[in-house]
Amino acid sequence: MASLRLPAHGSNTKYLYASFGMKEPEKVVDFSVNLNPLGAPSKLREKWGQWFSAINDYPDPYTSTLLETLAKKENIPATHLLTGNGAAEMITLIARHLAGRKVIVIHPAFSEYETACKNEGCEIVQVILSAPDWKLELHKLENELENAAAVFLCNPNNPTGVHYDRESVEALIAACQKTNTLCIIDEAFYDFLPEPVTFIQEVQRTEHVLIIRSLTKMYSIAGLRLGFLAGSPELLRQIGKTQPHWSVNALAMRAGVACLQDENHVKETRKFILKERITVFTKLEELGFKYSPSQLNFYLLRDPALPSQEKLLHHLLEQGLVLRHTENFPGIEGKWLRAAVKQTKENHLLMEALAAWKWKN
Amino acid sequence: MASLRLPAHGSNTKYLYASFGMKEPEKVVDFSVNLNPLGAPSKLREKWGQWFSAINDYPDPYTSTLLETLAKKENIPATHLLTGNGAAEMITLIARHLAGRKVIVIHPAFSEYETACKNEGCEIVQVILSAPDWKLELHKLENELENAAAVFLCNPNNPTGVHYDRESVEALIAACQKTNTLCIIDEAFYDFLPEPVTFIQEVQRTEHVLIIRSLTKMYSIAGLRLGFLAGSPELLRQIGKTQPHWSVNALAMRAGVACLQDENHVKETRKFILKERITVFTKLEELGFKYSPSQLNFYLLRDPALPSQEKLLHHLLEQGLVLRHTENFPGIEGKWLRAAVKQTKENHLLMEALAAWKWKN
Repeated sequence: MASLRLPAHGSNTKYLYASFGMKEPEKVVDFSVNLNPLGAPSKLREKWGQWFSAINDYPDPYTSTLLETLAKKENIPATHLLTGNGAAEMITLIARHLAGRKVIVIHPAFSEYETACKNEGCEIVQVILSAPDWKLELHKLENELENAAAVFLCNPNNPTGVHYDRESVEALIAACQKTNTLCIIDEAFYDFLPEPVTFIQEVQRTEHVLIIRSLTKMYSIAGLRLGFLAGSPELLRQIGKTQPHWSVNALAMRAGVACLQDENHVKETRKFILKERITVFTKLEELGFKYSPSQLNFYLLRDPALPSQEKLLHHLLEQGLVLRHTENFPGIEGKWLRAAVKQTKENHLLMEALAAWKWKN
Repeated sequence: MASLRLPAHGSNTKYLYASFGMKEPEKVVDFSVNLNPLGAPSKLREKWGQWFSAINDYPDPYTSTLLETLAKKENIPATHLLTGNGAAEMITLIARHLAGRKVIVIHPAFSEYETACKNEGCEIVQVILSAPDWKLELHKLENELENAAAVFLCNPNNPTGVHYDRESVEALIAACQKTNTLCIIDEAFYDFLPEPVTFIQEVQRTEHVLIIRSLTKMYSIAGLRLGFLAGSPELLRQIGKTQPHWSVNALAMRAGVACLQDENHVKETRKFILKERITVFTKLEELGFKYSPSQLNFYLLRDPALPSQEKLLHHLLEQGLVLRHTENFPGIEGKWLRAAVKQTKENHLLMEALAAWKWKN
């Protein structure tokens, strides 16, 4: 597969079709994007009209109200938080902070860590976990930690949906403290776990932990861009130094505050995802597809009869069912496809298409 | 004046009141922010409801539609343009590109050039133009250009409102080409000029010119954040390398396209600003205040009886009239105050307050 020409991310399906030289069907269902299938909290639509006036003036550059709301929800002082223009901006700022140094990335993982760090001249060490369970085997990076400025861990993991056990992550943090390495944990999807686990409180205990969070997945506000970091105040001061003024727009700020107050939406979402994922996995099992042991709102799948899944991806694209290619996930590279858990009807559509594929092949 | 504790920018008036230890009145008129007093194009309100759905999905990371619209309006290939999260982000990206090198800033000017470049370890050379006309005297920087990686020129100028004559700017560009220096021209306010002058076409002729533009001032969408750069494709590729993915949010993209299609709003604005500015200047003259020869939607003013204008600023703040302090503008430092041209009624309010001040003092 011409991986270099494939889009680096899901969503914006027209670019994937274009990279295959295919015409995008009029109706597509986008399984390549990992957002809450229940959409944004209903409060956002209610408030949308009155938020119009917020476009006219500069946003609060210190995002005070949002920070206070976050601090309260996370039970952490606002001094340990830094807000930004989506988790993507936070990753760029971290990369800037790590410029030129050695950085470990535990793969498979979100591709932006490597992209951003490479753009800042970092030396990347890839530690690749093994399918089909992708356990966090710390011995694989033991020898690398000593000279590394930082290690990126995506937990729970994108693209596999795997949640690493608490003991392994704690052991990684302890090892990082010994070697003076920054342990960066991307928790962008932690709130989709049936029982969420976070390491955010660690930042009050040690300056060697930095947490990346996103509000755009659970609250389905990716169009607005909103993410934040939790870390020691001194670390955040250094990282925030190169952040543009007014980085968080006025709508993201308002939506963020409203979202954080809607706990019910989060609970409903978790319940829904769990139920749908079980249904999907039961069907995949029945059809003879392999899938990752995901606990999140997306999963990896593969037809074990195929070494590369390109044909299957292509076949589904023709029907307007857009899955995420995995060419730019080290350790996965085309051997799996990623699909989001979407609405019941949409998940059903995908299962039907997969059943037809199996029947035909 | 405790300049270090004063806010670095206008708008968000609560921070200015707090820095003076004053209680913010319930009703304030914010003359510290330089946005279009006529507000955003009316089309934005009409479309606002239907744009709600755009918050749910990732924005187009390549901002294709916006780029095409910009390219058409500016009559320049899209390959010569880079969009971003407000002009502030563009300045941060430029600073990253110039990291550690020598940079000239022609003052007085927008404070972010220096802040961003200092944060990237640049050596700053300040070239300070002289009141009361702030002419672009090139001999002041002649000796500095040779070893400088770049020079920042804010034209037309914030905070003075002065528009440098075409010949001087052309001479600066020619000098930069000789010394292999990047000539960065911030045209954030160029479209407020009664007869706009831009150097954007220069980027098709030479790689030594980089133009900064903002859509948030003329179209009063500062809350959404939207700016762009025009430069040679290779320069923009280098500068864009460290830009976060999905930097421009989905609303800014839609609003930007709608704004760029509303030429009438721009024409009406120019006419209105010109008329109001003449009225304001006539009044200031009559009252014995000095003012900068501004051609824009803001101006500097001073009571010539006072060496520092702090007392006047304070006096106006008490009445809920918020002007912009100038402590962080080298060459101006408190000797002037900046005020925006606002709605007729508001401008009148300010003139009345200034008349009362003169009467009292």
